Amino acid sequence: MEFLVRFETRLPDGMDEAERTRLKQAERARALELREEGALKRLWRVPGRRAVIGLWEAPDATALHDALASLPQWPWMDVTVEPLATHPQEA
Amino acid sequence: MEFLVRFETRLPDGMDEAERTRLKQAERARALELREEGALKRLWRVPGRRAVIGLWEAPDATALHDALASLPQWPWMDVTVEPLATHPQEA
Amino acid sequence: MEFLVRFETRLPDGMDEAERTRLKQAERARALELREEGALKRLWRVPGRRAVIGLWEAPDATALHDALASLPQWPWMDVTVEPLATHPQEA
Amino acid sequence: MEFLVRFETRLPDGMDEAERTRLKQAERARALELREEGALKRLWRVPGRRAVIGLWEAPDATALHDALASLPQWPWMDVTVEPLATHPQEA
Amino acid sequence: MEFLVRFETRLPDGMDEAERTRLKQAERARALELREEGALKRLWRVPGRRAVIGLWEAPDATALHDALASLPQWPWMDVTVEPLATHPQEA
Amino acid sequence: MEFLVRFETRLPDGMDEAERTRLKQAERARALELREEGALKRLWRVPGRRAVIGLWEAPDATALHDALASLPQWPWMDVTVEPLATHPQEA
Amino acid sequence: MEFLVRFETRLPDGMDEAERTRLKQAERARALELREEGALKRLWRVPGRRAVIGLWEAPDATALHDALASLPQWPWMDVTVEPLATHPQEA
Amino acid sequence: MEFLVRFETRLPDGMDEAERTRLKQAERARALELREEGALKRLWRVPGRRAVIGLWEAPDATALHDALASLPQWPWMDVTVEPLATHPQEA
Amino acid sequence: MEFLVRFETRLPDGMDEAERTRLKQAERARALELREEGALKRLWRVPGRRAVIGLWEAPDATALHDALASLPQWPWMDVTVEPLATHPQEA
Amino acid sequence: MEFLVRFETRLPDGMDEAERTRLKQAERARALELREEGALKRLWRVPGRRAVIGLWEAPDATALHDALASLPQWPWMDVTVEPLATHPQEA
Repeated sequence: MEFLVRFETRLPDGMDEAERTRLKQAERARALELREEGALKRLWRVPGRRAVIGLWEAPDATALHDALASLPQWPWMDVTVEPLATHPQEA
Repeated sequence: MEFLVRFETRLPDGMDEAERTRLKQAERARALELREEGALKRLWRVPGRRAVIGLWEAPDATALHDALASLPQWPWMDVTVEPLATHPQEA
Repeated sequence: MEFLVRFETRLPDGMDEAERTRLKQAERARALELREEGALKRLWRVPGRRAVIGLWEAPDATALHDALASLPQWPWMDVTVEPLATHPQEA
Repeated sequence: MEFLVRFETRLPDGMDEAERTRLKQAERARALELREEGALKRLWRVPGRRAVIGLWEAPDATALHDALASLPQWPWMDVTVEPLATHPQEA
Repeated sequence: MEFLVRFETRLPDGMDEAERTRLKQAERARALELREEGALKRLWRVPGRRAVIGLWEAPDATALHDALASLPQWPWMDVTVEPLATHPQEA
Repeated sequence: MEFLVRFETRLPDGMDEAERTRLKQAERARALELREEGALKRLWRVPGRRAVIGLWEAPDATALHDALASLPQWPWMDVTVEPLATHPQEA
Repeated sequence: MEFLVRFETRLPDGMDEAERTRLKQAERARALELREEGALKRLWRVPGRRAVIGLWEAPDATALHDALASLPQWPWMDVTVEPLATHPQEA
Repeated sequence: MEFLVRFETRLPDGMDEAERTRLKQAERARALELREEGALKRLWRVPGRRAVIGLWEAPDATALHDALASLPQWPWMDVTVEPLATHPQEA
Repeated sequence: MEFLVRFETRLPDGMDEAERTRLKQAERARALELREEGALKRLWRVPGRRAVIGLWEAPDATALHDALASLPQWPWMDVTVEPLATHPQEA
Repeated sequence: MEFLVRFETRLPDGMDEAERTRLKQAERARALELREEGALKRLWRVPGRRAVIGLWEAPDATALHDALASLPQWPWMDVTVEPLATHPQEA
């Protein structure tokens, strides 16, 4: 099943540069793994914002939650999930 | 997978009484079938409104859409669907 | 450039069945042409609603508007468009 | 009487790991007691968020408030409560 | 248990004067009965609007729904219900 | 004239326990005075939240503001005020 | 006591020109009376809309409601009322 | 002074084709006059919608209202106006 | 041209009492100057809140911005501005 | 392609004066470069706020994002982007 997932990341002002860099690299690495596993299918940037929209595939909302919560920046993300149904033209 | 589904039905003002009665009976009958199939697990009324909240189970959003669209009053319903993930305390 | 487009169609209550059927067929035919031209890349249903989310590609917002307005049901659609920027992981 | 309760927990950034762990364990323990007392009937996770939706049973809103306020993380929760009426199909 | 109930009534434009008058009288009569039964405790007008705010008492949301739905104008009311908990200063 | 007043109090995270206790006692004492003066007529808790709804009586909005601003926790309250008109059934 | 009142008038599409003209004249005449009585102190147009903002004076919300409901176009107005307190700089 | 003006036009379903065509032509003609007078400086389409965003210049909000209300389709437009201040970089 | 201006001031928690007092006095002094210049015509308190509504007069939005930004508390104000057009009854 | 871009800047309370001044100068310098490159075509102030509205031109949303993210104050900006289609009257 596919999901449209929107998230915006706000690292705390007080976090130091080294930790930010480490988090961003860890985030990128985990995102690549999720792509290889087929969980993360597409990713776009919302222009002008520190926000992304992603097209995800997961067996159900529980598996999707686990995938999202495995992202290193998840504790600082504001996430909204929209379930998608197959359109008859694509079935 | 479970979904929380909220819908509010507004039959058009001009619909005659006989058609309303027929629709409501057909609605009830179809809802009972969906309960027996295990798609519709619980149903509550939003107090004061012509609205209900239901707990549904479906393999995915496509199957859920088909179940909802099979309700005879669906053309006059305003429906919102929220995907639910299993809570670790219940897993 | 890609756009995320959400639309919900509400044909007027008074429209007769034949006109509805004709419109839906014309809509499907035009949507297929837009897919072949590469303007419409993916289409999902919002579960429970008469609404779809589409991933569109167009040179700019003017070309996108023209593609959307060429849909036979456009006069009865409520459409919102969100511009998408390429994510560095996909560049 | 049943209530649909939605809450999202945000522990302050400055809280140390030991206190967080202690709070989460105390929370789980109190939630289990509330389940055994029949106050907390079901619990779901909102996918992607640190939020849960629960189905609660309480004699009235005062008793529900006391049950919610007895949760150790309550001072950091944003809670919304929706009263539920029995649906005639379930009466 | 007490509830704060807000409703706004919009009789359809096409309804004739006689039917409006009949409905308003029936509404007033039913409201008086609900006051005598102790279900309706206070009623205020929202200044400038065809809307009222009421303080209701009912054993639970199901009984409240039945009381509200017994009002003759209920089919044309937009109703929202807010559950109230007893404040410790008044317990 | 009556007013429906809703307020939610958020004392700052850094405030120490002694100050919180002192403030809550001072708040309760001032609320009792306002009840005795007839300014505060009823008080309810919004279940699950650190929020209350009150029914207030004051000659006008200026007097109401002064009563609200006399509450010791007022600097940390988010307050909304709704004017109430007498309903003809109660006049 | 002063109130800030915002209203937007939507006469029904089917109302004929003569009735519209009659209503607008009656509206203007009643507004002038309310100015003379001191109830209506200022009136502005919201640019681009069929909406006005008015500064009203009334002993309380009940008297304000009666003044607003005495306007001939009131049945087709959407009205919101905001109570105003005297600012210490003007007391 | 400049204003950002957004409007969306919804001609009533029942309006016949000839009247629509006449209105659209009259609208275009009046818009051209307003451009020549310097009131309407730029006009964009909101992609996917029957809505436009315009950059207008007028001595004040009263003159702007008169310009907008002179558009033949104004009775069916939903208009919002945002005042613009000169940015120091452009002064 | 007149403007309706709403602002809410939130001085930071950490600001000391002396600085608050100094700021409030400076604010009052500047507000008096703006009244004398005719820029600030009326000022009301929103009951229950640290917010005010003001009626301002300025040649255009740029001059209004300069007047508002000249207030000593402006860096901590959340301001919204609504342009007002003259009503024909007052012209 | 043109975009309407709205942004509001909130530098953190703790940032010292020297850093603020440096940032504002760097911001102005970069904005001038973007004007010269033709990316930034117009800029207005939202009266009363630390917010601006800009008319931007970019080949697509990705290029626009890069231009916006090149502004030195971007980490503290809240940005929203609206795509604009050419209006037939201007084509």
